[in-house]
Amino acid sequence: MIGRLNHVAIAVPDLEAASEQYRNTLGAKVGEPQDEPDHGVTVVFIELPNTKVELLYPLGEKSPIAGFLEKNPAGGIHHMCYEVEDILAARDKLTEQGARVLGNGEPKIGAHKNPVLFLHPKDFNGCLIELEQVG
Amino acid sequence: MIGRLNHVAIAVPDLEAASEQYRNTLGAKVGEPQDEPDHGVTVVFIELPNTKVELLYPLGEKSPIAGFLEKNPAGGIHHMCYEVEDILAARDKLTEQGARVLGNGEPKIGAHKNPVLFLHPKDFNGCLIELEQVG
Repeated sequence: MIGRLNHVAIAVPDLEAASEQYRNTLGAKVGEPQDEPDHGVTVVFIELPNTKVELLYPLGEKSPIAGFLEKNPAGGIHHMCYEVEDILAARDKLTEQGARVLGNGEPKIGAHKNPVLFLHPKDFNGCLIELEQVG
Repeated sequence: MIGRLNHVAIAVPDLEAASEQYRNTLGAKVGEPQDEPDHGVTVVFIELPNTKVELLYPLGEKSPIAGFLEKNPAGGIHHMCYEVEDILAARDKLTEQGARVLGNGEPKIGAHKNPVLFLHPKDFNGCLIELEQVG
């Protein structure tokens, strides 16, 4: 069911410093900050040859990563995103097997304009997993 | 400097259950457990089309992931690994810029038989980063 690893997301306490570090110290291809008000984050995409890293910084007062950064002030790996071909089929198969989907269970449109869902970390080895429908 | 994302490593409290979940629930290509006594872990590799996920479980009494699982009993994303062409050049560039390398600063041979180093999470947004020399 799962396909490519679409991205790994890192919550960071200083978006400019983290971008600068990936661009200059680690020598990666780093994009410009993009505000995603529907998701409560500002995102910087880092293009690696085979996948992406996303730096996340809180946007607005109800950012879903504000709590994570309170618990992890230095930042940390926040989630990983697997691609699926059919997000509703994936959701139905997972929930039939007892896995929990966060929120109301319906896909939202993610930062890449594709439908996404998040799975409950307690059902997946403590990892927050995003599923993104591609193609 | 950094190239491909070689893998994301997830520390898990039950290697058999996690392998079964990735194989049957998430439908991924999951290998057999491999003991890595030099690294204090048993590893299961999950082959995605563009990268790998590694499930880690403690092996022996001084496993470097035992403390992580004590703090995160459900498991969690433990580290991410970027490929580099020349690990000594990468190390020297990073340490010149003030980043800290874990251990004695010399590369060890990793689970893929290539030289690896780990960077201090406090210097990289709370993320434990492994560098692996490939090719």
